[in-house]
Amino acid sequence: MKDQTISSLTASQLRIDGPRLWHSLMELARIGATAKGGVCRLALSDEDRLGRDQVTAWAREAGLQVTVDRIGNVFMRRAGEDESLPPVMAGSHIDTQPTGGKFDGNYGVLAGLEVVRTLNDHGIRTRAPVEVAFWTNEEGSRFVPVMMGSGVFAGAFSLEQAYAATDVAGKTVRDELEAIGYLGPQVPGQHPVGAYFEVHIEQGPVLEDADVTIGVVEGVLAIRWFDCTVTGMEAHAGPTPMKLRRDALQVATRLMQEVVASAASHGPHGRGTVGMVHVHPNSRNVIPGRVQFSIDLRNATDTAVDAQVAQVQACATRLQAETGLAIHIELVSSYPAQQFDAASVAAIAQAARDLGYSHMPAVSGAGHDAIYLARRAPAAMVFIPCKDGISHNEIEDARADHVEAGANVLLRVMLERAGVVE
Amino acid sequence: MKDQTISSLTASQLRIDGPRLWHSLMELARIGATAKGGVCRLALSDEDRLGRDQVTAWAREAGLQVTVDRIGNVFMRRAGEDESLPPVMAGSHIDTQPTGGKFDGNYGVLAGLEVVRTLNDHGIRTRAPVEVAFWTNEEGSRFVPVMMGSGVFAGAFSLEQAYAATDVAGKTVRDELEAIGYLGPQVPGQHPVGAYFEVHIEQGPVLEDADVTIGVVEGVLAIRWFDCTVTGMEAHAGPTPMKLRRDALQVATRLMQEVVASAASHGPHGRGTVGMVHVHPNSRNVIPGRVQFSIDLRNATDTAVDAQVAQVQACATRLQAETGLAIHIELVSSYPAQQFDAASVAAIAQAARDLGYSHMPAVSGAGHDAIYLARRAPAAMVFIPCKDGISHNEIEDARADHVEAGANVLLRVMLERAGVVE
Repeated sequence: MKDQTISSLTASQLRIDGPRLWHSLMELARIGATAKGGVCRLALSDEDRLGRDQVTAWAREAGLQVTVDRIGNVFMRRAGEDESLPPVMAGSHIDTQPTGGKFDGNYGVLAGLEVVRTLNDHGIRTRAPVEVAFWTNEEGSRFVPVMMGSGVFAGAFSLEQAYAATDVAGKTVRDELEAIGYLGPQVPGQHPVGAYFEVHIEQGPVLEDADVTIGVVEGVLAIRWFDCTVTGMEAHAGPTPMKLRRDALQVATRLMQEVVASAASHGPHGRGTVGMVHVHPNSRNVIPGRVQFSIDLRNATDTAVDAQVAQVQACATRLQAETGLAIHIELVSSYPAQQFDAASVAAIAQAARDLGYSHMPAVSGAGHDAIYLARRAPAAMVFIPCKDGISHNEIEDARADHVEAGANVLLRVMLERAGVVE
Repeated sequence: MKDQTISSLTASQLRIDGPRLWHSLMELARIGATAKGGVCRLALSDEDRLGRDQVTAWAREAGLQVTVDRIGNVFMRRAGEDESLPPVMAGSHIDTQPTGGKFDGNYGVLAGLEVVRTLNDHGIRTRAPVEVAFWTNEEGSRFVPVMMGSGVFAGAFSLEQAYAATDVAGKTVRDELEAIGYLGPQVPGQHPVGAYFEVHIEQGPVLEDADVTIGVVEGVLAIRWFDCTVTGMEAHAGPTPMKLRRDALQVATRLMQEVVASAASHGPHGRGTVGMVHVHPNSRNVIPGRVQFSIDLRNATDTAVDAQVAQVQACATRLQAETGLAIHIELVSSYPAQQFDAASVAAIAQAARDLGYSHMPAVSGAGHDAIYLARRAPAAMVFIPCKDGISHNEIEDARADHVEAGANVLLRVMLERAGVVE
């Protein structure tokens, strides 16, 4: 008995059951289904409970052992030949946005389940255990912070902080975990992880635009979030000549353009977005006295994103000096860039190549549980295209052949990492 | 007995009683007084009724005959030597914004009353009758359209249209006129007007900035109001590279800057304002899919404002071709420029000069009852500075010496027009 690589004949011919995976995705999407074809399964809601019950029931049917930790993260384990080895894990989340889709998160969990079902079908034993996990409250729609379960697991913030988070009705995470029956006994973070893989729809347009099936995710962009306030002087639009105005919006729009310019001048992974704008008093015939807006800067490295920050701040300083209007920029969130484990990334690329799928390097611009897992174990992600790059939307969609391809890549890298026992 | 000009010794030495006028302004401001020192006396409300009752009581004390028309406009008449002549009229309004000030409108009415009191004090008879009017619902805060009473008077819209206007509670103008006892018998517009003068706070910063007491208002700016919608594609800020974005806000901000640029390139009276902005979905990490904003363009002539419109529209066409995003611009309101009667304007300038007040030509960027009155009679306006140019605000303020000066100019031009009987 020895470890086998993916070149082993049996393993290399192995494929997941695409229609079965698709069927499970559609079944899970019935829980919290919305009229427009999406899903509303907010973290720790009754719908979340029903979703958790469904997935764990499937896991038990597949012979998996289900355990839960104190933040409600669920681990579904297929024993390995050597139970002393840490598990090779697939994971993601099953909570959704209020107007979410069928694929975001769910795909990563059910692809993991499909990998296990495929191993069962073919009686394949792995050397290391194989696990499928889902993490509590990735979306952050009902409780902040986002990526709560994986964040606690990775020690990014404490269990107590997470427990204290409340929804708009004042209910706490701890009480709701208890209410839905998913306040488990395991200490978060003590569950061993040997390797972590997460397959996910891209949630962006790059793969579709390039007509490529597999995105080999090399890392996650650094993010800097700011709130900016430009303060001028509210005045009547009619009686106030241009030279006597202190129009906060006119200054703000120049800075908004610099946010985008900063991304273009720090390509190819630079991003600059103003998503939220509040104009005061927001009246047709009143010159805006105050404009508040968000700034979202991202790039592949912290150095690059901080260069964008500097460019935007220099523009603000220049505008303030030139116009005399006060510009206040406040950092509200900062996430470092995360490079995924090079060997895991290479293994994904190799798997896609072996399977004959078109593939390309990718970066994730959005947050995923894999970012926190990367602090605890070698981790990497697989992207597949989604229709028009749309996600966090009831019309979110993905092609069945892409869904199948991503799961086949997952199968292959998990087997390669866990080792096949012949 | 013959007509006297203002060079008449008595008349030229005549001055209004500044403290008395100020006292009346403060008394009237007690009706609907707000905690922050402003006034809330919405059109046809109980407070408006109390205000109307107060002003007409003062008028009767001063010996004036009070009549009311069917839209609630009130005329307070001091008989002339020749009652067949049309009256020389001062007027404005006494309704206020919800968070209005003590001077907007009220000043023009009470300055007229002070002129009459001054004539009474000195036993001065005029050849033509002298009247003081206040017009219903100038502000338009409770019922639209604005400048309702003067608009019906001038035939800009019908009495039936005005009657049918409802407030948020569904109450109609007609019912509320009846409820407060100001549904009079006169047919609007049939009341004769020989000349119309309106003194008003400037509601802008020009006079204060120039340290000038009297603004000789030559006309009112043409106004063009548009709603603009830029439609892009909503997408996640993280996963969407810059070159695949259709960011509605980035295109909108360029057009917003052109709105201001169009004013600068059509000076000195060009105005360009974006006062209202709605970003969809207005979320920090979502690229805006749609931005709606208002465009307010003004200039001294229709030709000039239409050149601004053309400049903004050309920019929109250019941006649409360049970016592929749809830009829709819709006209929502258009008011022509209004030149005031040249002889009346000259008379005001002459009066200010004779009285030794600093004065300068002015334009009104805002709407006033005088605009509609100008369609029925020679009309003009007198501006005085207001503190920091602020109006439609509880902190609206004006200097007592300026308030007195404006009323003295009014006295002089009214006497000049009505003729003094010696």
